[in-house]
Amino acid sequence: MIRGQHLLGMRDVPADTIYGILDTARGFKEISRRTIKKVPSLRGRTVLNVFYEASTRTRVSFELAGKRLSADGVNISASGSSTSTAKGESLLDMAQTLDAMQADAVIIRHGQSGAPHYLADRIGARVINAGDGQHEHPTQALLDLMTIRERFEKLEGLDVALIGDIRHSRVARSNLIAMKTLGMNVRVAGPATLIPNELCDVYGCVRCDTVEQAMEGAHVVMSLRLQRERMVSGLLPSLREYAIEYGINAKMLEKTRNEAILMHPGPVNRGVELAADVVDGPRSVILNQVENGVAVRCAVLYLILGGEQP
Amino acid sequence: MIRGQHLLGMRDVPADTIYGILDTARGFKEISRRTIKKVPSLRGRTVLNVFYEASTRTRVSFELAGKRLSADGVNISASGSSTSTAKGESLLDMAQTLDAMQADAVIIRHGQSGAPHYLADRIGARVINAGDGQHEHPTQALLDLMTIRERFEKLEGLDVALIGDIRHSRVARSNLIAMKTLGMNVRVAGPATLIPNELCDVYGCVRCDTVEQAMEGAHVVMSLRLQRERMVSGLLPSLREYAIEYGINAKMLEKTRNEAILMHPGPVNRGVELAADVVDGPRSVILNQVENGVAVRCAVLYLILGGEQP
Amino acid sequence: MIRGQHLLGMRDVPADTIYGILDTARGFKEISRRTIKKVPSLRGRTVLNVFYEASTRTRVSFELAGKRLSADGVNISASGSSTSTAKGESLLDMAQTLDAMQADAVIIRHGQSGAPHYLADRIGARVINAGDGQHEHPTQALLDLMTIRERFEKLEGLDVALIGDIRHSRVARSNLIAMKTLGMNVRVAGPATLIPNELCDVYGCVRCDTVEQAMEGAHVVMSLRLQRERMVSGLLPSLREYAIEYGINAKMLEKTRNEAILMHPGPVNRGVELAADVVDGPRSVILNQVENGVAVRCAVLYLILGGEQP
Repeated sequence: MIRGQHLLGMRDVPADTIYGILDTARGFKEISRRTIKKVPSLRGRTVLNVFYEASTRTRVSFELAGKRLSADGVNISASGSSTSTAKGESLLDMAQTLDAMQADAVIIRHGQSGAPHYLADRIGARVINAGDGQHEHPTQALLDLMTIRERFEKLEGLDVALIGDIRHSRVARSNLIAMKTLGMNVRVAGPATLIPNELCDVYGCVRCDTVEQAMEGAHVVMSLRLQRERMVSGLLPSLREYAIEYGINAKMLEKTRNEAILMHPGPVNRGVELAADVVDGPRSVILNQVENGVAVRCAVLYLILGGEQP
Repeated sequence: MIRGQHLLGMRDVPADTIYGILDTARGFKEISRRTIKKVPSLRGRTVLNVFYEASTRTRVSFELAGKRLSADGVNISASGSSTSTAKGESLLDMAQTLDAMQADAVIIRHGQSGAPHYLADRIGARVINAGDGQHEHPTQALLDLMTIRERFEKLEGLDVALIGDIRHSRVARSNLIAMKTLGMNVRVAGPATLIPNELCDVYGCVRCDTVEQAMEGAHVVMSLRLQRERMVSGLLPSLREYAIEYGINAKMLEKTRNEAILMHPGPVNRGVELAADVVDGPRSVILNQVENGVAVRCAVLYLILGGEQP
Repeated sequence: MIRGQHLLGMRDVPADTIYGILDTARGFKEISRRTIKKVPSLRGRTVLNVFYEASTRTRVSFELAGKRLSADGVNISASGSSTSTAKGESLLDMAQTLDAMQADAVIIRHGQSGAPHYLADRIGARVINAGDGQHEHPTQALLDLMTIRERFEKLEGLDVALIGDIRHSRVARSNLIAMKTLGMNVRVAGPATLIPNELCDVYGCVRCDTVEQAMEGAHVVMSLRLQRERMVSGLLPSLREYAIEYGINAKMLEKTRNEAILMHPGPVNRGVELAADVVDGPRSVILNQVENGVAVRCAVLYLILGGEQP
């Protein structure tokens, strides 16, 4: 279905492709729960994890996905004191080098928006965006959708409250795009400085004045991670003030539907975006998101590299 | 035997469990000496190495053990500039995340005593302590016992001289506990500041005034690594003075039995804990300890994850 | 052919051994272009990558070679803040430790010339030099020769222009030795401070006054990487002056033969050693070198560890 394609973002990914990935991921989730959580689908394929920004959970999730498909994986951490950086090697030179080593897929996380697209135009390997700048993080949106779908069979028409720092969030952007594609209704709330003015025009979402308003009757509450470094730039009041006005607690969750779920891409700043009790509370599906992350990444690698049916 | 259990420390590990692990490890040592040093026992299992303190040799030893059992392993280095630390993620959040990814075993090294126990109560994966603070390092004790047993068939009743910084040593603690369980006689010697007053009451060992006295007629001399950072805290005289009073040389080894062995958990500060000639001398079994480390870790992973007979 | 030997440098490697490695590498290149790029030759063997200097491309190349042969590989980065360094562990102690873990091959990169030879005399595992100080980098010479041979069937008698910082280059040294063995004619050019006086006496090469002179009628132009840190030591004028006098551009390449190829060990400082257009130009075989690097490393591991015919 997306065999031979790149996965650069949720833009231009049609609804049936999304559903196809989610259906495939369901099978891989079942495999991951077996004692022997491994299929031979991508044996002898080369999958490279190239992380220009550190991210333990996303890297481990992709790495496990590759191993469960029997692919040969290599990690390349290009941040900090690594040679490639130290030697002043450009992203393109690095990618062309990896491509020449006959990589089948290059999973890339990079601080600059558009880096995966730049590579996709210039190398032979399939490129999977694992997060680029403040742009997109498509596998996060896919795992979020998979998690929502496990609770609510039909995604179309669901009401989603998206709370927090929308402006800097690639998680938000990928979700906003995909949810629009799928006909979901998104309401956003957060500090005025962290929500772009044109947001609702672009993504067809509705802006609410308060978090409570956004959560009213919602099926899904999606809280975004607050990057502490935003404080420095003067975009935010203190963490404490943020927590009081925008942090989500059990009382606020009462405004949602009875069957509503609470999501967060992790890691949570406990007591800031979410009160500690709701993180581990009955509505929280945060750990389901983590589990589904491996399944979705298995599905994406499997479909893109065109392995046989598992 | 310990199938489905955690390995958090040597406390509460009964003698027959210890012997069972050592017997199993003997088989894995033989496998590691083959050309094809690999068995399919843990194929498709997920084993995570989570090191909050760097330790090349312990990490590589566990990693090789996993590979020789055909498990899928992922390394997570949580020290220094890694994301999880940078993002202020707590140990528990990290562990729950890994658990949600369907880890079968989490091998953890952590600077804080009790960290593995804390996790074991809260996650589904089996937890193996690879060293926690100044508390325990159970696989080190097991590999030490395996090495002693290769020379002296019967462990019960053996005389062990344990020399050096007992206070800060998780290696010492795990050995003291296990040796008491097995009925071995331990005599300790070292700087007064580095031996806790209550030690002999707790572990049933005997405290000697001099290293020579502890070594008199011993079957086993176990030297502990001196952490150079102890110097700073004023607990020690200069390294040179330490070497003169507590460093072990060939002449001192003459006080032991003819068949006595010299052990050290490594890496040795040559010329401090041990004179250079005894490190490589005929009594040294330091490299046997290293080899047995992989075998013991194979055995522990194999028994805990309940693979079939190799 | 070199079964059971070390690969420490190109010195003492006779011509027929070189050709044997290149022939074997050709087969592995074909395997690396398959969908399933993997053979079971080294299943259950332990191959350790020990890098005391960071080098993403060389490490990844060796790591992929090991995986394509189905070996079990472990990476050890001994630079910077790693434990072994932090704990003051010597190179020998580290190597003996890895050896005791039943490593079959130790691939080592080290800042000190001679480090691999030192180890080879003292451990049981086969040692492969992945670059030692300013001494040798034999697999780079082999991949360079493989790349040249793909264009010109017969290596003997070819004219090679070797341009740049010869003095500090292990790539140059390994190539000079191997090319002399194979009866190739090497002409060198570069800043006087970066070409040792005795070079031509030792390696039977010819020194030219200008880059143009060295390139006149050459079959092969081999540009060396300029380490920026050389600037600091006063051995070089500014980068800009270097680029003007010694940088290679399209016009200069016209002096070579029609079928001449342009090589560089990478990563290139674009606009310094090579003008940007020639890096990606029709004569450039830089990415072929990268591809052949994996194939040559497969061949070396395969031959040294004595696997069966692939």
